[in-house]
Parts: sequence; structure tokens; C-alpha cells
Amino acid sequence: NPRYVSIANLTCYPSVNDLPDPVELAVVAAPAVSVLPTLCQCAEKGIKGAVVITSGFSETGEEGLQLESDMVALANHSGMRIMGPNCLGVINNLNGLWASFGPLPPTKEHCYKRRFSLISQSGFFGSFIYLAADYQKLGFTHFASVGNQTDLNFTDFLEYMIDDSNVEIIGSYIEGLKEGRKFLVAAREALLKHKPIVSMKVGRTQAGAKAATSHTGSLAGETRIYDAAFDQVGIVNANSIDHFLAVLTILAAERRPPGPRVAVVSISGGGAVILSDECELSGLELAEFSPETILELDRVLPFFASSVNPVDLTAQAFNNPDLLLKCLKLIATDSNVDMIAMNLHVGYELIDTVANTLVEVYNQIEKPMVAIGCPYGAKVKVEKALAQIRSAGLPVFNAADSGFWAVAEFLKWQKKAQNTTMPAKTLPGKERDMAINYLRSLPDHQKNLTEFQAARVLEPYGITFPKSEIASTADEAVEIASNLGYPVVLKIQSPDILHKTDVGGLVTNLTGPEEVRAGYRLIIDSVNKNIPQADIDGVLVQKMVASGHEIIIGVKQDPVFGPVIMFGLGGIFTEVLRDVSFKVAPLTRLDAENMIREIRGYPVLAGVRGKPPADLNALTEALLKVSRLALELEDEIEEIDINPLLVFDDGGGTIAVDALISRR
Amino acid sequence: NPRYVSIANLTCYPSVNDLPDPVELAVVAAPAVSVLPTLCQCAEKGIKGAVVITSGFSETGEEGLQLESDMVALANHSGMRIMGPNCLGVINNLNGLWASFGPLPPTKEHCYKRRFSLISQSGFFGSFIYLAADYQKLGFTHFASVGNQTDLNFTDFLEYMIDDSNVEIIGSYIEGLKEGRKFLVAAREALLKHKPIVSMKVGRTQAGAKAATSHTGSLAGETRIYDAAFDQVGIVNANSIDHFLAVLTILAAERRPPGPRVAVVSISGGGAVILSDECELSGLELAEFSPETILELDRVLPFFASSVNPVDLTAQAFNNPDLLLKCLKLIATDSNVDMIAMNLHVGYELIDTVANTLVEVYNQIEKPMVAIGCPYGAKVKVEKALAQIRSAGLPVFNAADSGFWAVAEFLKWQKKAQNTTMPAKTLPGKERDMAINYLRSLPDHQKNLTEFQAARVLEPYGITFPKSEIASTADEAVEIASNLGYPVVLKIQSPDILHKTDVGGLVTNLTGPEEVRAGYRLIIDSVNKNIPQADIDGVLVQKMVASGHEIIIGVKQDPVFGPVIMFGLGGIFTEVLRDVSFKVAPLTRLDAENMIREIRGYPVLAGVRGKPPADLNALTEALLKVSRLALELEDEIEEIDINPLLVFDDGGGTIAVDALISRR
Repeated sequence: NPRYVSIANLTCYPSVNDLPDPVELAVVAAPAVSVLPTLCQCAEKGIKGAVVITSGFSETGEEGLQLESDMVALANHSGMRIMGPNCLGVINNLNGLWASFGPLPPTKEHCYKRRFSLISQSGFFGSFIYLAADYQKLGFTHFASVGNQTDLNFTDFLEYMIDDSNVEIIGSYIEGLKEGRKFLVAAREALLKHKPIVSMKVGRTQAGAKAATSHTGSLAGETRIYDAAFDQVGIVNANSIDHFLAVLTILAAERRPPGPRVAVVSISGGGAVILSDECELSGLELAEFSPETILELDRVLPFFASSVNPVDLTAQAFNNPDLLLKCLKLIATDSNVDMIAMNLHVGYELIDTVANTLVEVYNQIEKPMVAIGCPYGAKVKVEKALAQIRSAGLPVFNAADSGFWAVAEFLKWQKKAQNTTMPAKTLPGKERDMAINYLRSLPDHQKNLTEFQAARVLEPYGITFPKSEIASTADEAVEIASNLGYPVVLKIQSPDILHKTDVGGLVTNLTGPEEVRAGYRLIIDSVNKNIPQADIDGVLVQKMVASGHEIIIGVKQDPVFGPVIMFGLGGIFTEVLRDVSFKVAPLTRLDAENMIREIRGYPVLAGVRGKPPADLNALTEALLKVSRLALELEDEIEEIDINPLLVFDDGGGTIAVDALISRR
Repeated sequence: NPRYVSIANLTCYPSVNDLPDPVELAVVAAPAVSVLPTLCQCAEKGIKGAVVITSGFSETGEEGLQLESDMVALANHSGMRIMGPNCLGVINNLNGLWASFGPLPPTKEHCYKRRFSLISQSGFFGSFIYLAADYQKLGFTHFASVGNQTDLNFTDFLEYMIDDSNVEIIGSYIEGLKEGRKFLVAAREALLKHKPIVSMKVGRTQAGAKAATSHTGSLAGETRIYDAAFDQVGIVNANSIDHFLAVLTILAAERRPPGPRVAVVSISGGGAVILSDECELSGLELAEFSPETILELDRVLPFFASSVNPVDLTAQAFNNPDLLLKCLKLIATDSNVDMIAMNLHVGYELIDTVANTLVEVYNQIEKPMVAIGCPYGAKVKVEKALAQIRSAGLPVFNAADSGFWAVAEFLKWQKKAQNTTMPAKTLPGKERDMAINYLRSLPDHQKNLTEFQAARVLEPYGITFPKSEIASTADEAVEIASNLGYPVVLKIQSPDILHKTDVGGLVTNLTGPEEVRAGYRLIIDSVNKNIPQADIDGVLVQKMVASGHEIIIGVKQDPVFGPVIMFGLGGIFTEVLRDVSFKVAPLTRLDAENMIREIRGYPVLAGVRGKPPADLNALTEALLKVSRLALELEDEIEEIDINPLLVFDDGGGTIAVDALISRR
């Protein structure tokens, strides 16, 4: 500060240049107009990193965007890495680094075995989570508020945290990612290392996406693509703050549930019902007690209480404080139980007894336990009891829905972490050469490929089409047909015609020369009448194939993640019901299998009402082939629409009978 | 109590008979075995009402069930009405009645204009809500814990509360209803009176339903039928405690939002994004500010803040405490805004300033406002601020999802309340006589009706079938066909054959006498071969009709609500996708229209890809006809399956081309 000698007893220097000592990190909080000059001084001084707190850049429009470009240029040129602008800075609880203006007290003791780090695109939300986590005694190691991500972006911090063995759990608040593929590679590495990433991806709706753009200049992107991508790499995505904190808690706890079988224990019958509902709705199960457990429970419980799961102690718990203790201990010995969930949706009178009992039992047994709910009334007493439960390392959840959801998500994450593989690495080979050469042989101005042309690009990668050739006259068509063998179909080939049937450009099931001749004329006449200006390549004469399930496989470019693969059943499934699945390339085999299983119409492929199943293996292969092609030809191709791909009964394989490709 | 002279300074009498004075209400808390004798004494004494607290009846099995039957017999015989057993009793805050053992302090002051009453099947859950409502300063008038509902049931209390003009809002916790139709009649009356009913229906899953049975002996019933029924009569169903309290709060507030256009105001950009997402996900909208509002906001906000909705004040709100006040006042004058939602997901530092500002603005403006969120840290300060906001009558919601959901549900409820009508009342007439007479003319042992027979039951109600007659020989078939006119279809008619196609019992599109003759033989041979033991009525010769959309309309008996109507599209829509809608009879016209619109495949009927819409009017009529029939023939018919009903293009009507009826 050039105007003061000291502020708050700290010496002021008029400029960065005047600083006497070497500096490791600069925190820049100067007004927006002074930020760039200050950063230049920092770079000259040889500072290696700068945190820019100041707002007023890309989130405000064009001018701010230009200033950010200048910052990136400075970073690239000088080697100084820049965090922000428009951020709350960075905190490292492990080494005491505190480069933030957030009103965040240093965290106090933490109750759980593992601590978490947070990367947030919102400073305030980050602070909110920081304070919430502190209140719930969730330990905190690093906090990075990444702001507008001009130089250092979200993924840079993610990579740091994946590398740092001190980081055990990674929490993230995301409005919009900039380098989606780099992010997914990092996230998959985290999954391979069994280091969980929990995200809260906001900007899920149009309204939210618009708000995100004016907040951090983020492109929020398509929610279903984010969801698909996160699912592929095992990111646990929470849709509310409560869910976010709940899953961090279950991940942080020392005892993580080994399976989905939950024992619900309640003093309230209603609470028992509510927890049972939520347990099943979350995809967990109510454990089935062993006969011995039920027998023993019956001995201690009053006759009108429930000794099967969920266990309802009834109001007798008031008269007999030992009841809960005895029941919990009995249940803890049952090997059919993976986890005990205690209902705290009770009156406040018993809360201290319940807390004492939970802690006593928890310390005597090995099984994971959680407590769900928060009684109202007698605030101080309740707070004290909940703190006591947490202090023992027992997760406490506000609500049954988020609590059980968190447990279920943990189990799903664990399964993914155990089964994940890297996508097969294949180097581009002669397939790519063939496809690229063909694409480059087409006229530069031609954006859309005809089916015949698209087949030349897809076939090298193993997507097969029926035998076919292009005819320019009816005689040629007949000659080709007799070479191919009947029946045949005729299809107009024109880069100007995307939907052949709409203009009478398709005739099927022609069984002899005369039919082919008539069909040829019909097509030409019809197309000439409907779109006289269309540029016609000719008429494709194609061997007709047996009927099969009609499948659509598509590729489109996502601005965040690159090529995205789409899968669906043809007809009303796609057109009316929008029953399609998406995944980001590259697909693993499991991804491809999941894409097929995820659609609602899957039973049609698996075989309904005694019909044989379709060749799901061949379908999986087709998706993997398209995934490979989409990545290797990413720079050439904008969109692919294989529609339909026919899949036959198991063992019968697949064949594409029409396809569109749009070039970039 | 026969063993004491006094307890807690209250005189004890050895038995009810010894009581010196007349008694208005008895509260029975004696052990289960003594309950019935005590109740008998009460009845003899001429007491008009008894609350039975004691547990250990139908929830424990057969013996308890018998005791409850005896209680009902006593009630019927003596005229004394009995509440419970297994309940927490009844509280009336308006007249000071306190017949409960619940640890519930008398409620303190309430902040909102309207108070609510609660009918609960769970005593403990009821207490929990009671305390939660007290904490949130939601006023409480009546509390009824209905327990096992032997004599007085849930609907009795509901009817009381609908009648009592002191009751403004009815909250309910439901595990399973006993007289579904009576309940729905009452609930529809509440809707007509604009008296909202909020429910939390639990036992939604298999696990929850099982738990409900052992808790209050309730049959939880099918969740999708409950959901449909509640939707029909405008009951707001909350799926969590948080949602339940949120919707009670919005209903209780003096200022209810007139429409869905929300202005979101936040100090945190992240909070603004989260609230925007939740707003849209709940079906509400972000209001579009008028140009004047944006202009004025731009004058007061820093350049890097957002002046379009959502409004993000940024951290400048810390430096300039007036910023929030100015912004809120500006937004309040915008007629495009129905409601202001203030984000409280902030740090705790500003919470008192925010609270002061909210209250100040709220008192100066007319618009509804809500506050969403709860900061962590500095618990006492935060609690005080939230209490201050509530005291002004401003709803405070814990979470954005439940808060906005509550607002959206209120708007839906209001629309229903404005548009609701009673189902058309029609007295059974000659339709019923014709159908009943025909049904009774069939052999007693015959459970399943053939298509020809089902048509005789459905046609009187206006469900038409193509012209047809039964042939017993090939010659007869030919004669009938030439009378009807070609083409015709032939169908085997046998009460033993439910699926004709599976046994070769159906031949279509027969265009001349020879085809009919051959078809007749084919059917007879095929059926004889496939099920030689089948009892054959003959072969139905039916005029073939043009093709249309295939619809399924079904009726089944729900144990709670009686006849339920099912609607769906044929083929994969029903068989694979289970894309069907349900409603409970009687249907209003709106119910029938909604059933059609609710299925995912609705676009097929509305017309996709340039195809004309189906005759939705005729389809609505068909549903109303089936609804009437289902009620009027409730005692005779177990199930109806009109499959398919063909619906033609708009104006073309409907025709049933097959139907099954099962008798009771």
C-alpha cells in the first residue's frame, strides 16, 4: 500500500518491488484495475504463485474476459501460477497456509478418522461448507476457492489433491468445468487410488446455469452429460447441502458399512416406519435378523414391541432405560447386520440417555452405527447429546433420506472403486488412416455424408453395413441387384437429403429386376418432385437384411467433455419417450454394458414374453468401436447418427442399415 | 386405582362406578388385560367418550385383534365412542382439553396467521412434529393420536376437523387408512372448502409397509394408489419431515404467494445458483425483472454483482450493509415478482444484519417473502436471528429443496381447490339392471367372462364393440360373416381361455367364405390340440375394424379405496415400460383427462411427427363410463381388462375389440 507506512502493526511497502525479502506467494486483493499491474510486479520479483481475490473479471463481461486473457499470458510467459480471480483463496490446515479473506475460524478438533479437502467454485458456498463441517466436527485439510479459473483451474487443484497422500477425501462444488476430459482422467485416477470425490454440481437447470454464468463465468453444460460422466468415474454427486455433508461424514467415519443390510432401532413406531421406508428407497435393505437375535430380543422387549427389524422399543424405553442398551448389544452380534441405524426423531427427554447408550455400545462393539435425526425442544440438551455422539466417531445425520442415501452412495462408490479399469488404450492405426483419407477425399464444402460415404468411415472401425453399390441408371441398379442377390432396397444418396423417407427416397423389399427398375424410377421421380435442387450422388442398391431390433447409436460433441456416445432403441423409444443413455468417450466395456442396461426399454433387448435375448455382446462391441472412432476422428467429425443399427438374436451380431455423419 | 387413596394429591377411586360425579371423557391407561372391563364400567356409568392409551392389541396379533372387536361391539352397543387403543390421546389447545400422556409442553406463542391441527397414526411422530412446530413457532390447535383406530378412526377425526371452523390447516401422519372411500369424500369436501390437508403417508416401501403393520396393525396398501387418490382430492403429500413442516409453514403464513415467479436474493453467488436450480426443479420460475428494476439495481450494486435474477450482492454486502435493504425494496416494487426468496446459506457474521433488514423490509412491503437456509457456527446468534425473522411472520425454511417444493405444492393445491368439482352423481339406472341381469344369468361357478359375455356387461354403459355373433359350426360362421360383411375376424370363446393368441384361438382379416371356413377349422383344431379340456362356447365372428391406437383400460379392487381404474397404451408401453396411470373411482372429468395426460406415452396420442391427434374426448368418455360401471357393479365384478380399446383419430371415437371380466 503506497499510502500507509503500516496497517494493523504490519509494515507496508509502497510496491512489490520494494519488498526486501524473497516472497513465496502473493495474495492480490487490489481493485480490479490494479490487479494486472500488481501481478506483473509479482512476476518480475520472481514470485512463483499468486492468489487473486479481487472480483470484476470474466463474470462481468467482455472487458473482464480480456483482463483474464492477459493474466493467462502473464502466467505462461513468467511461469508464475495464478489462482482466481474472484475467489476466496486457499487454506492448508496441515502446514498453516492461510491465504484467504474468508471469515473462517481455524477448525477445532475433528471426530472422525479421515478429514476432507474442498475445491469450490464459490467462495461463499465453500465457507458455508467449511463452517458446517466444523460444526459437525468433520475434519478439514485443504480449502481451495478457485474462482474464475483463469490460469490454475479446478482440475489442477484436483490433481494436486489426488497426488497428495495427506488428502483422504475430496469434496467439490462445481458450477462448470473447463477441461472436462482432463478432469475425468484425474477423477478416474482418484477412483483407482480409492480416494473418493464428492461433488455438488450446480447449474443443473436453465435458471441455475444462467446464474452460474453470471457468477463465475462458467458454462454449466448439459446436466445429463455431467451426470453420465461423473457416474463413469465414480464421483458421488450430491444434489443438496445436506446430502453433501452426509456422504462426507460416512466417508470420514472409521467404520464404513461393509454391506447394505441395516438394522433400524427406534423408540418411536412411526420413526421405525419412516426409517424403513427411507432405507429401502435408498437402495439399502432391512437386515433379516437371525432367529437367535429375535428370540433374545423377545426376552428383553415388552410383548407389544417389535423384535423383528425395524425394532420398535415403544414408550417402554422411558420406563426401562436399559432396554436400548440390551437391544443394541444383541443386534450388534448378529452377522446378518452390516450397520445399525438409530432413530433420533424422538422427543428430547430421552436424548441424553440415548446418547450415553449409543456411545457406550459403540465403544464395545465393532459394527458401524449411525444416528439419524434431531429432536426439537430443549436445544442446549440436544446439541450436547449430538456432540457427544459425534465425539465417539459415530456419524449423525439430520435426515433419513440424506443419511441412507449417503450410505448407499458410499457402497456404490466402493464397488466402482473395486471394479474400475482404465479405458483400453489403443493407438490410432490403419483404421484411422483409412477413414481420414476417405474423409479428406470428399469436397471441402460437403458437411453431411451420405449413407454410402458414412459407411466408408465406419467400416474400417468394424461397423458393418449390408453389401451395396451406387447406381446411376435403372439398368445399373438391376445389374447390381442381380450381383448382390434379391431382395434388395433402393435408397437415394444425396448430401442434401438427411431424411430419405420424407421425400420418397427409399423403396424396400424389391424381389426382381422389374421391381428394381420400377423402384428406381419411383425414387428419382419422387425426389425430383420433392427437392428438385438436391445434389444427387445416385441410388444405393443394398442387399436387404433380416429384421432385428432397431438401435440408434449416436455421437455428438459436448463443449465440456468432447465426444459423447448416445444409445437408444429406435422408434417411439427415442422419439416419444427420449429413452436414451449417454456416456463420455472413451468407454470402458463396463460403461458400454451399462449404457445398454440403463435404458427403460432394456427388457426388449433382454427378451420379453419368451422372446430370445438380443446379441448384447455384439452391441457392446459396436459401442466400443464407435467410442474409439469418435475419439480418433474427433477433429474431423461433428456428429454421427447410426440409425438404425440392427441387432439380431444372441450370436447374430449387428449390422448398420443407415448412418449419417456430419463433418466439423 | 383400587390400591391407593390418592396419587399426586389427586383422590383415587377404586373403580369407575365409585366416581361421585358425572364424567364427560375417560382416559384409560390400565394394563391391556384390564382395558375392556374398565371400558365396560365407563359405558355403564354413561360416559360418552373414552381415550385408550394402552398398547398391546391388534399390533401384537390375533388375541389383541379379538379384544379390539369386543371394544367395537361395546362402542356400538353402548353409544360410547372409543379412541385408540395404542395411542397418545387427544389435545385441544382451544378449549384446554389435554387427554394425552405425551411429553408435550403447552405451545407458546405462534408467529403465523393460521394454526394447524394434526391427526397422527404414530404417537411419537405426532409428538415430534408437535415439538418441531412449537420450535418453529407454528401454531397448533388440535392433536389427535388415533392409534389402532378400533372405533373412532382417522376419517372420523378428519371429518370433525373439516366441520370445525376453528381448524384452518390439517396435518396428518398416515400409515394405512381403513375406509378409503369415506376418507376421500371427506378430503374432497375439505378441498371444496379450501381447507388444506397435508399428509405424510409412510409405509411406502415393502419394508415400511411391514413395519407399519407391526406398529399400528395398518395395511399400508399400494403406494401408487395412495398417491393417485391423494392427488385426486388435493392432499399435499410430503415425503420427509422437512417437507411436511415446510408446507405447513407456507400454508400458515399470512402472505401466500399469488404465483410461481420468484426473485432470488443472495449474498453468495453459489447460494444464488443453488436456489435458482431448486426453484426451477420445484416447478417454480425465476421472475424476469422489469427493465426499470434492473436499471435501479445496477445503480446500487457494485459492477461485478448480478442485477438480473438471481441477485447476487457479492461480498460487498459486508462493506455496505444498506445494499440488501435497497435491493429488497426495489425488487418488492416489481410486479413481475410474486415472491422474494432470501438465501441464508451464508456465514453467520452477517446473519443479524440480514435478519434486521428482512424484518424491516417485510413490514414495509406487501409481497410474500421467505428465507431459506441456516448458517453454521455461532449457534446462539443464528438461533436468535432466525427467531426474529419468524416472529415477523416470515417463513424460514431449512433447505431450498423443501422450501421451494412447499411453495410449488401450495400453488398446485390452490389451483385444485379453485377447479375442483364433485364427481358427477348418477343414480344406477337401466344400464345397471341390464348388466346385473346378464351377469346373474351366467352359471354361478363361472368366474371369467368371454369377450362376447363381457361385451353384454360393458355395452349397456356405452362401451361399444364391433358387430359380432357366435358360430357353432363353420357354416354358421360363414353365414354370420356374410351378414356382417367382410373382412371379419374369428375368436375362440371359452371361459377357460384368457389369452386367445397363445393357443391359436384368433384369426384375423378373413375376406371371403372360404377363408372363414378354413379359419374356423384352424381355430377349432388348434384349440383342441392346445387345451383339449377347455369348455368352448363357440367361435365369435366379428366385423373387422380399422386400426387405431391400442389402449388398455382396466379395473381392479383396491383393499383400501375400492375400484381403481387403470389406463395405458398397449404393447410395450404397458408390458415393458409399465407406463400406466391409476385413479380411484369415481373419476371426475378432470381425473379422466389427467389419466390420459399422465402417461409418458401421451405424445403418441396427442400426435407425434405430423400424425393427427387421437380422439381424446372419446377416450375421456370411455374412462368415465368404465368408472361409473366399476362403482355400480362393485359387488359383482372383481376385475375388468378392456384390451385393446381402439381409439381413432380425433372425432373417430373408440371401440373395444377385446375384453375380460372376472366376477367376484
